[in-house]
This record gives sequence, C-alpha cells and structure tokens, in this order.
Amino acid sequence: MYNRILIANRGEIALRIIRACREMGIESVAVYSEADRESAHVRLADAAYCIGPARSSESYLRIDQVISAAEVSGAEAIHPGYGFLAENADFNEVCRSCNIDFIGPMPESMEMLGDKNTARALAQSAGVPVVPGSDGLLTDTEEALAVAKTIGYPVLIKATAGGGGKGMRVAETPDVLETALQQARQEAEAAFGNGGVYLEKFIEQPRHIEVQIIADQQGNVVHLHERDCSVQRRHQKLIEEAPSPLLPEKRRKEICDAAVRLIQNANYYNAGTVEFIVDKNDDFYFIEVNARIQVEHPVTEMVTGIDLIKQQICVAAGQPLPFTQADIVSQGAAIECRINAENPDKNFMPNPGKIESFFAPGGLGVRFDSHVYAGYTVPPYYDSMIGKLIVHRPTRQEAIACMLRALYELEVGGIATTASLHRKILEHPEFIEGRHDTTFIGREFST
Amino acid sequence: MYNRILIANRGEIALRIIRACREMGIESVAVYSEADRESAHVRLADAAYCIGPARSSESYLRIDQVISAAEVSGAEAIHPGYGFLAENADFNEVCRSCNIDFIGPMPESMEMLGDKNTARALAQSAGVPVVPGSDGLLTDTEEALAVAKTIGYPVLIKATAGGGGKGMRVAETPDVLETALQQARQEAEAAFGNGGVYLEKFIEQPRHIEVQIIADQQGNVVHLHERDCSVQRRHQKLIEEAPSPLLPEKRRKEICDAAVRLIQNANYYNAGTVEFIVDKNDDFYFIEVNARIQVEHPVTEMVTGIDLIKQQICVAAGQPLPFTQADIVSQGAAIECRINAENPDKNFMPNPGKIESFFAPGGLGVRFDSHVYAGYTVPPYYDSMIGKLIVHRPTRQEAIACMLRALYELEVGGIATTASLHRKILEHPEFIEGRHDTTFIGREFST
Repeated sequence: MYNRILIANRGEIALRIIRACREMGIESVAVYSEADRESAHVRLADAAYCIGPARSSESYLRIDQVISAAEVSGAEAIHPGYGFLAENADFNEVCRSCNIDFIGPMPESMEMLGDKNTARALAQSAGVPVVPGSDGLLTDTEEALAVAKTIGYPVLIKATAGGGGKGMRVAETPDVLETALQQARQEAEAAFGNGGVYLEKFIEQPRHIEVQIIADQQGNVVHLHERDCSVQRRHQKLIEEAPSPLLPEKRRKEICDAAVRLIQNANYYNAGTVEFIVDKNDDFYFIEVNARIQVEHPVTEMVTGIDLIKQQICVAAGQPLPFTQADIVSQGAAIECRINAENPDKNFMPNPGKIESFFAPGGLGVRFDSHVYAGYTVPPYYDSMIGKLIVHRPTRQEAIACMLRALYELEVGGIATTASLHRKILEHPEFIEGRHDTTFIGREFST
Repeated sequence: MYNRILIANRGEIALRIIRACREMGIESVAVYSEADRESAHVRLADAAYCIGPARSSESYLRIDQVISAAEVSGAEAIHPGYGFLAENADFNEVCRSCNIDFIGPMPESMEMLGDKNTARALAQSAGVPVVPGSDGLLTDTEEALAVAKTIGYPVLIKATAGGGGKGMRVAETPDVLETALQQARQEAEAAFGNGGVYLEKFIEQPRHIEVQIIADQQGNVVHLHERDCSVQRRHQKLIEEAPSPLLPEKRRKEICDAAVRLIQNANYYNAGTVEFIVDKNDDFYFIEVNARIQVEHPVTEMVTGIDLIKQQICVAAGQPLPFTQADIVSQGAAIECRINAENPDKNFMPNPGKIESFFAPGGLGVRFDSHVYAGYTVPPYYDSMIGKLIVHRPTRQEAIACMLRALYELEVGGIATTASLHRKILEHPEFIEGRHDTTFIGREFST
C-alpha cells in the first residue's frame, strides 16, 4: 500500500480523498492555488503545496506543477478527483512515465472511452443497447438525412467530443436538420476544437440512470447498483439518488449487468460510471462511460456501505477487490443535493463571497461533505459547488423528509445558495412520486 | 399523531428531538433560559418560549413554567430529553393531570424503577441476575457484616437514591466496613436527602453493558441490542459503542432477553435502558433501569437504522411498534465520543466561553449531533457537553479509524475540549482490542 498520495484537486472532493487516506493510514499531500490557501483541504492534509495562481489553467490544470509537487513530496500515487485533470489521458500517461500511480483507469481505457463513437462501438460489441443512430461520425447532410429517415424523427445531433450539453441540437423534422447540423458542428468546433458530430434518435422525457462500477487489475468487475440523476438543470445534475425510483427490479438487474459487460469488454479497471438514458417503456440505452469518481458517488456509498475512494486506492495499488458481486447489497434510500453558491432567483448567477455564518446540518441519516466553514470566502474562480448534502434512510419517503429538514437547518449566511430550490424540488409531487425525468426542472421550475 | 410537541430541554438533545419532529411533520416548541437565546435549538424550533433565568432551577427545572409554555403554545405532548425533568415522576404526573402526554413511561413505572431496591426486586422476580447482596436496605452494621460474610469480600455499599458515584464505598475487609457504611450514609443523606444504603458484592474490573428497549402501550417489548459504555471517568461515560466488543454471541442474546423480561414484568412502555455490569467470566448482573432516552442512544440508531426519538413519539401517541423482535438487525459497528467543553490537561475543568472558529467533521460514516457553531458562546450554567461525534462503519476497526480522523477534523477554536483525550483513548491497545473495563480510564490516564 502507498505511504503518501497527492490529491490533484480542491474543495469537497479533495477533502473526501484526504479523509479516506487518513482512515487508511496513508499521508495525504494537498496542492492548492493562491486563492485556496484558506480551504479546509489545505489545513487537513498532512502536507500542502501551492502550485500557482488562482486560475485553473495556471494551477490545478498545470500538469508540470502537479507532477513536481508529487515528486518533491515523495507521493507514490495521485488521485485526480473529478474535473480538472481527472479525465486527461495525457496527464495519466505522464504519471505513468514518472512512475507515479494514477488512481484511475489506464490512459488507454480513458482515451478509448473518452471518444463517444469508440465507446458506442464498444457497447454494441458487448451487446449493450445504444440509442439507434449513425454508426460513427456524419460526413454530410445527405448521410444525416438518410440515417434520420431510417430511425425516425425527432433526432439528436451530438458532438463526439461534447459534454454539458454543448454541441447538441434536436431536429424535429427533415427541413431543420441541415441547420441543426451546422450549428452543432460550429459549437463543437468552438468549444472542443473538434467539429465531429453524430446523430441519434431523440428519446423523449428520458430518465438519466447510471451504474457505478468498481473493477480491479485482476479482471474482477463488480457493479454497486444504479443511481438516478434525472433532476438536471441544463444538463447539470442537481439531485441524485439511489436506488432509482420506479425502475422495475428486472430492468434494474439488466441495466447493471449491461454495465458490467461493457466494462469487462473495455479491459477497464478502477472506479467508473456507465451512463444510460431510460425511456418511458423502461428500455435503456448506453450514453457514455465516465472514467473517474463522480460527484454523486456518496449515494452509492450510503446504500452499499462501501467506501469508493478507499476501493479506488486499493485497486490502483494492485489489490484485488475484497468482495464479489454476491456480497453487494443495496439497503435503504439515499439522496444527494448539490449545494451551489448560486442565486436561484437571479438565473443561477454564481454568488461567491464570504460565508459570514454557517450551520452544517447533522443528526441521524445526514452526511455533509463540504470544505467550507464560517469565515471562509468562496473564491470566484472555480465551480460553485460548496458542499454535498446526503441523506440515507430506510425508505425514499423518509429520505425526502430527512433531506427537507437538513436543508431547513443548513445556514449559509452572506451568500446565496441553491438550498431553496432543492426544497421546492423535494416538495414537488412529480419528484415525490418518482415520476420525474430530465425535462422536469425545465418544465416545472422555468429556470 | 400530535400536531405540536414541546421540548423541555436544551442543547443537542433538544435539537435531536426538533429534527425528529420536523421529519414527522410535527411542529416543535422550544423552551429556553435567558442564557440560551443563541442556541441552535431556539432558532430551529417552530416556536420558542423563554422560561426564565440561566440557572436550571429557575428555568429548565421549573415545572410550572414548562407546563405554561406547553399550554400557551398548544402542545399536546412534552418530550423531556435526558437530565432536567426527564426522570421526575412528579413532572410526569403533572403532565398527565394537565392532559399533556409525557413522552416516556408512566409516572408509576418511573417511580418504581427509580428506587434501586424496588428495581432489584423486580429484576429478581423476572429471573434476571442481580449482584449478590442485601435484600433491601441495611438496618445496622451487624446486618451489613453478616451479609458481607455470606457473599464474600470485597463488597460495595451503595445509596438507594444514588447516582454518578455518590454515596458509594468499597470495603475490602470486615474491619473497614463500619466506616465505609457511615461515609456512604452521610454522603447519600447530603446529596439526595436519603441516607438509605444497601450492600452488594464488589465486581472487579466490570464492563458496563446496557440494553436499549422500546415498548409500546399494547404490551410489545423489543430490544435494540446492547451498548458497551465501559469507557468512564469517575462514573461519567466518555465513549459508548454498539455492539459490545468481545461479548460472546450467546451472552449477548441472554443479556438482551433478560432486559426484555424485566421490562415486560414492569408494565413499562416507551424507550428505556436496562443497565448491567458484566464480570470477567461474562456473567452479567442487573444494575438499574434508566426510564428515558439516553445520551448514547445514537450508537443504537446507527447499527439498527431505527430512529429512537420517532419511536418514542409514536409510542406515546398510542401507536403499536411497527416492527417485531425478528425485524431488528444490528449491522456494523458504531462508536460515540462525547465532546465536552472541558480541559483534560487541567483536571477536566469546565471551559465555557465563545467558540471563535468551528469545523464540524463530516463525510462517510460520520454523524455529528451538536447545537454549537462558530460565534456561539457555551454558557457556564449547564453540563459541558457541546456535541456528540458518532461514527458507523462495517467493522469496529474501521469505526475506530473513522472516529480518529473525525476527531482530527473537529476544530473548536477558543475553548478547550475533550477531543484530545478521545484520540488517546482510541489509540490505546486496550481499547483497540476491546479488553477495557470501567477501571480503564482511571488506570491508564490518571485523570
């Protein structure tokens, strides 16, 4: 096992990884930008290195600085968290060439799954359903029209390098397809430097369901059941839960088995998430693999009792998984609300600034993952999430009640947060009944 | 079910009860002394009434003031928490006469179990082992000598009205028995206004093990397994855990069954704890029943998943228990550390004052029950507990590691706390191996 791990991240996920290290008796090394000196992850790590100015491109994204800090501190492995360098295959490759273990999959797996088309082909070869669409990138409008005719309208044009909804367009009829195609290409070229697009059948009112995977270097692949992340605003997840409400038991098993098959075929190890969309008939279609730990991993930890970060570290160090699929039991219901420093009444404008007063929710069933405290100043340079509020109770109904009271307790004085929106969502009949899909927030909250 | 409950307490337990009420859709009514205006329990209740000056005798112990607040607020029930009026049978009786439900046992049960001798007789009639000793109060030294001769030295003299170690003396040999008897009588008379004492065999190096009971008004009695509270300093519990380490499975079952038998015989309902001491041969002896919720109830909640405060409320409202003994499963290991505002380096001198900075531990496996926050001033008038840090992990070893990292994270700037002592205890081989008994702290930490 490692003696020392460097954490190439900030905020709550850096703190999350420090916690796992401390419990395992591993020293943690934090890196931080000049704007993050006062963050709890700096105070709570065993060592901390400043790696540059506030801007991510000058600190958290500086591969050379992160590697230097690892070498100076004597870290044997790097945990990238999520975001920043987490899915950067080059960084992963540099770690390998420096003899530092990257806590995640091999760069080759990352690269293969990072390309949506390769990933789609992989899913098909593993017998995992994909959304009907073009096999590979579209060459021209003619081809697009032909494919769309075969699969039927409406269709969705997606950028192969895309994410977060960028480079995505819906075409309801053939006459708007060419324009949609051009817009998607231009947006993708501008955002990702890659204008490659493909076409899929547009699934109406889909639910977003994803399966947590953990796999070791010995070839064992285990799923930790599914999460439902259908509460999204403009493709950004707001609330995640496990298990998915209303998904029939048979489908639950099929979707988890499909995810395991895909990961087995990819020669992939460490933690990963296989994302699906599920239509009104509970039919599911593969979307993509996230080759890293995800923001919403705690809900899976709550229902399975498994510490995913510790498992990531053990797997990276070459240990076989200490459990088999038969050992994994999902118990109760867990929900996570992402608490962002944004003003829901002002079009979700980020609202960084000083937290004047603070009360963290606690008590039975509540887990709060956050790096903030009274007196801390949320810097304006990074994503606006200031904490994750997670609950776990025997039933979904009790979990919702527990989350509502925890949100009521949460006090963040001095800056606006999304807590008030979460309360409204949790009190909405569509959410309470578990009938919501990814169009829910757009339809019901006109945000 | 009730619409409104008054909470006749303060601090973390008041907040704990407010949380349960909110999740159940019941309005909570707080009462507070002039010294507690800034406490979180006042802010988080649906209504709050000031019931007098700081001193407990002028506020939290004022039965008339508490009842007035209940009547003015329209509360249909009162939860007394622990301490203050929680085991006051008169208060319980006054509630009944005012048609306010007391969330706890009937005054008759409380009175019967409050007397150590009656409780002992009850245990014997239920076939529950008691420490060999005098049957009833001692009349004179002659009787004491005779009983001591029969059961064998060393013997323990205990006040019938006692608690917290007051009115207690050990006699190793017959020649010191008379002096010990006189000292115990005088101390008991001074402390409790009742000089009645009895005599028991002194159990050497005992463990303190207690069984959590919940019983409904329909006569169903269920145990929620045991807790081990052997980490004590001068008869004050510091750390509690569930399950008890090292107790053989057979004994675990026997002790829980004995507790259920005793409670059945007492015609008792609501939550209660049956306390035992366990000797080196794992033989157990009944000590007393605590007819209220206890400080350490969260460890039981963590391993069973049952919300004890909600169950107390449901039982008081006349609902039958929603589970049977067969439904109760204990999973994993839970530990609680009481965080007191005391200076362990200065003979545990209370250290009230302003909390200048505060960071609450969080993350996987951690529950923090506390009413304090940055900027809060701990008043000097009440007990010094400022929070309870609770962890729950699959194994005891993992729970200890999790607690150590949570204690490391906890920051309470401005006042001294017992967190540093807890760290030392959790790193001590005797605790790690689970071999500790109630003499552990006195022996190993010379406090």
